Amino acid sequence: MSDQVKYTLEESQIPKFWYNIVADLPKPPHAVLHPGTKQPVGPSDLEPLFPMELILQEVSAEREIEIPQPVRDIFRMWRPSPLIRARRLEQALGTPAKIYFKYEGVSPAGSHKPNTAVPQAWYNKQAGVTKLTTETGAGQWGSSLAFAGSLFDIDVTVFQVRVSYDQKPYRRALMETYGARCIPSPSNETDSGRAVLKEHPDSPGSLGIAISEAVEVAAKNPDVKYALGSVLNHVMLHQTIIGEEAIKQFELAGDDPDVIIACAGGGSNFAGLAFPFLGLNLRGGRRRRIIAVEPAACPTLTRGKYAYDFGDTSHLTPLVKMHTLGSTFIPPGFHAGGLRYHGMGPLVSHVYDLGLIEARAYQQTACFDAGVKFARAEGIIPAPESTHAVRCAIDEALRCKAEGKAETIVFNLSGHGHFDMGAYINYFSGKLVDQDYDEAELAMALAGLPSVAAQ
Amino acid sequence: MSDQVKYTLEESQIPKFWYNIVADLPKPPHAVLHPGTKQPVGPSDLEPLFPMELILQEVSAEREIEIPQPVRDIFRMWRPSPLIRARRLEQALGTPAKIYFKYEGVSPAGSHKPNTAVPQAWYNKQAGVTKLTTETGAGQWGSSLAFAGSLFDIDVTVFQVRVSYDQKPYRRALMETYGARCIPSPSNETDSGRAVLKEHPDSPGSLGIAISEAVEVAAKNPDVKYALGSVLNHVMLHQTIIGEEAIKQFELAGDDPDVIIACAGGGSNFAGLAFPFLGLNLRGGRRRRIIAVEPAACPTLTRGKYAYDFGDTSHLTPLVKMHTLGSTFIPPGFHAGGLRYHGMGPLVSHVYDLGLIEARAYQQTACFDAGVKFARAEGIIPAPESTHAVRCAIDEALRCKAEGKAETIVFNLSGHGHFDMGAYINYFSGKLVDQDYDEAELAMALAGLPSVAAQ
Repeated sequence: MSDQVKYTLEESQIPKFWYNIVADLPKPPHAVLHPGTKQPVGPSDLEPLFPMELILQEVSAEREIEIPQPVRDIFRMWRPSPLIRARRLEQALGTPAKIYFKYEGVSPAGSHKPNTAVPQAWYNKQAGVTKLTTETGAGQWGSSLAFAGSLFDIDVTVFQVRVSYDQKPYRRALMETYGARCIPSPSNETDSGRAVLKEHPDSPGSLGIAISEAVEVAAKNPDVKYALGSVLNHVMLHQTIIGEEAIKQFELAGDDPDVIIACAGGGSNFAGLAFPFLGLNLRGGRRRRIIAVEPAACPTLTRGKYAYDFGDTSHLTPLVKMHTLGSTFIPPGFHAGGLRYHGMGPLVSHVYDLGLIEARAYQQTACFDAGVKFARAEGIIPAPESTHAVRCAIDEALRCKAEGKAETIVFNLSGHGHFDMGAYINYFSGKLVDQDYDEAELAMALAGLPSVAAQ
Repeated sequence: MSDQVKYTLEESQIPKFWYNIVADLPKPPHAVLHPGTKQPVGPSDLEPLFPMELILQEVSAEREIEIPQPVRDIFRMWRPSPLIRARRLEQALGTPAKIYFKYEGVSPAGSHKPNTAVPQAWYNKQAGVTKLTTETGAGQWGSSLAFAGSLFDIDVTVFQVRVSYDQKPYRRALMETYGARCIPSPSNETDSGRAVLKEHPDSPGSLGIAISEAVEVAAKNPDVKYALGSVLNHVMLHQTIIGEEAIKQFELAGDDPDVIIACAGGGSNFAGLAFPFLGLNLRGGRRRRIIAVEPAACPTLTRGKYAYDFGDTSHLTPLVKMHTLGSTFIPPGFHAGGLRYHGMGPLVSHVYDLGLIEARAYQQTACFDAGVKFARAEGIIPAPESTHAVRCAIDEALRCKAEGKAETIVFNLSGHGHFDMGAYINYFSGKLVDQDYDEAELAMALAGLPSVAAQ
């Protein structure tokens, strides 16, 4: 048997609870601070932005949090997602390792993002919210929230980073097909946007700027809430459904991974696959290796500082302790837009700081090499973000080959690349090159981190 | 329960046999004629183009033809495809009808086309073929054969209709990612292409021209075979796996369709869903209605003539009896490129001529209206071709509403629209308008049909 095998669960096996890693951590995570007082925020500080149920999830230390039945009913559209044994890739590499991938591109929006967009939209709907704002870089998150909004009749406004708005009209069309409104950011609709445009009329935008705009709209309009697609604890929580399913699927396969791999921008698809396995490690299981893969041009974990920082450019968000390159750091314009963020989710940063996971950075041509190799073996075109995980999985499989070890490797194929074929066109034409960040700019951004007393 | 429900089969339930409608027809299909002698062709006439196993399938009258195990193993990458109850769409329409759709967009190439690309590539591989040529219009077939070629290490060359090559760079990138070579057609690589370019240096190309080029390359090079993605009997045969799975899934659902709907260009996704149900009708079951939906701008069944005609522009192919608009007919440039073909598959034409199925034609704006309504209800963006089936399913559901009938409707969602978002952009911007063919041009094309003695 030389072909791919899917490990499929029944719809009745969609997990009933999300897994909260906080319950199993050897050290609790650091407090979130108010940007003005620099004192820990309480739930009421976050109320202008989020409904109370999500705020309570953000600060919860319960190990298991129930997934509402209506949310599970919607998940049946694409969940359980398949765990697939990549036998053809194994053969192409000639490795004794077993390579599996969890495929999240089966969702309507084509990535893992609907796993949190749907519950976020649902909790907002329950709280009577009818309007949501958000930002999007690569477009995966924006299209996922647009999709979730269409399910619950919620108006969704997406501030899309200008360069992505211009370069990826198909992503925008997807959001509009779901009924969302897209605004290129920086825009004239917010003070944050106008301030940037005044300085830089031709600004290509950034995720940090777009977050400022979306947060500002929610903060100023009582009938509008804000939704974030990564970084925050409740987002990581919602994504754990990926790893929980994978654990059941490995039981079906009679296997158990030695190495668990995912790309990490804000950290949500990484946490989604990794945290349930990390929980097994922490609760006394054997120690499975867990690797977060980031772009060498935006190396938050491998080159950033673990410090309090803002999530956005205009400094409207609370301060969170995370691995950061500084909120003023603008990474080069490489193709994995979903990984172009200056910070890393606080929970991912925390477990990295505790030495519970590893991190690795790759340049983009090596990732696209891996993505094309994967597509030719397994048929699926990975999103540029996901090619980082593919690269690492291939390298681990080649290490196994060199060492003669039959380890089991699993990676998260967080999304397909159907809306990112422009990047593949550049790759084939040789226009896609490796890019380095500016060391001086990074030093300056890190020097500008806010000063905060030890928490 | 108001949400979508998937009816999923186990991989072990992937059908073991294709269903051949010829065995159950009240009248045998018409012979295929040699373009020179106008006498019925024998298997040896087709040998320059196809491997013998496919030729034998082309002329077989056996009811069941075994699917080779290696092909079934590859099908496990995406099959069985889900049958989904579109409850949200039902609710949005307020219809008592039950609407189901079979979703073929789950394949790596995003449509039903790999169902025949994989066995075609496999039979060629078994026959020692290492090079295949084909043509593609919308790009679904070209990317599917490229995918299949990557699995079996077969070199694939795709003649892509020039206008599609220029307008859909993402489709081309997909084919190149799978390792295929794409050539815009008409090209300078063939006599057929050079002849067109001499007359019309700026020719946007057509499927008929691209077929001529691909066939010419195979005919002139003994080490190259040709593969066709629709029209022919063996292609219809391979696609019956869709309807065979659907029959099992309706048993699971405890339901049985009253109306079966699919769009029809060459007829393969239509035959794939419809023929197994038509077989049930013919073998003494109740009479389920079966509707083929075509574009009003290329209305092969509803306005074409049932006559012998060529499959291509340069008249290199055999003559087949089909509903045709004439091989010189060039349809307007509407967005469902996969439906822009002057003929209809002979088996589909035959059952239409026998009164066993219905046909209906729609203009494209009505189809995109339906596609957007569907996407907002069910999350999936349909391919422009598939929106024709969605339109018809919605209209049938609205008829049920008007008549107060709780009929069961199923349609084939033959592919997703991720590579066709340009059409949605035009739709939202109001640039997508209805288009009519030229009546005088149609009359001329029909007048030019080859004269053939009754067979």
